[in-house]
Amino acid sequence: MKEPINFLSKFDLFSEQWAPKVIAEMNDYQFKLVKIKGDFVWHEHEDTDEVFIVIEGSMGIEFKDRSVELSSGDMIVVGKGEQHRPFAGEECKILLVEPRGVLNTGNTGGEMTAENDIWI
Amino acid sequence: MKEPINFLSKFDLFSEQWAPKVIAEMNDYQFKLVKIKGDFVWHEHEDTDEVFIVIEGSMGIEFKDRSVELSSGDMIVVGKGEQHRPFAGEECKILLVEPRGVLNTGNTGGEMTAENDIWI
Repeated sequence: MKEPINFLSKFDLFSEQWAPKVIAEMNDYQFKLVKIKGDFVWHEHEDTDEVFIVIEGSMGIEFKDRSVELSSGDMIVVGKGEQHRPFAGEECKILLVEPRGVLNTGNTGGEMTAENDIWI
Repeated sequence: MKEPINFLSKFDLFSEQWAPKVIAEMNDYQFKLVKIKGDFVWHEHEDTDEVFIVIEGSMGIEFKDRSVELSSGDMIVVGKGEQHRPFAGEECKILLVEPRGVLNTGNTGGEMTAENDIWI
């Protein structure tokens, strides 16, 4: 039996940035909370779309041909294979929805790659 | 290219209750906004889990052995095959995440069954 989950209460449980924490699974998809600040790496996810939902704060996503801004209550679908680079001037709290097993840095790797399946 | 979507702006575009509106697709999953008030019908989704996220207001979900309450910023995963009945005393604005093709009344049908794939 699954119980209700409060996003802000879950955000209170960690302070790391760029390190997604799993809060729920639906079929083979995961819902992950992330705190972000600064610039992430350019990357893409070759096999899947990815959803960003801003819970608190503001962020941007740079694409190769444009840049978008997102604030609390906004979402965007980043398409499969679409190169993107998330960034935030101040810490921003976001919810990601994507299939289990997706790495945060996609095909790029590197030191910002976070361990998967860390539940809170 | 997919653009940012603001939940509250999308909710301003319709007034019907219990009639999910698709705002985005990620792979073969849909993100749907729904306004609910009153009691829905008991039903289950035999083939899939279903996610409820409350955007504004409060609602409840009755299960066969318990009942849960959800407010803005809460989510819950209703398990595949789990009988449930959503309800709300006052109008509540929610986001559903589930595979494309899932009917709102699941296996129950009846007059509260909404047409699928209505985009706003």
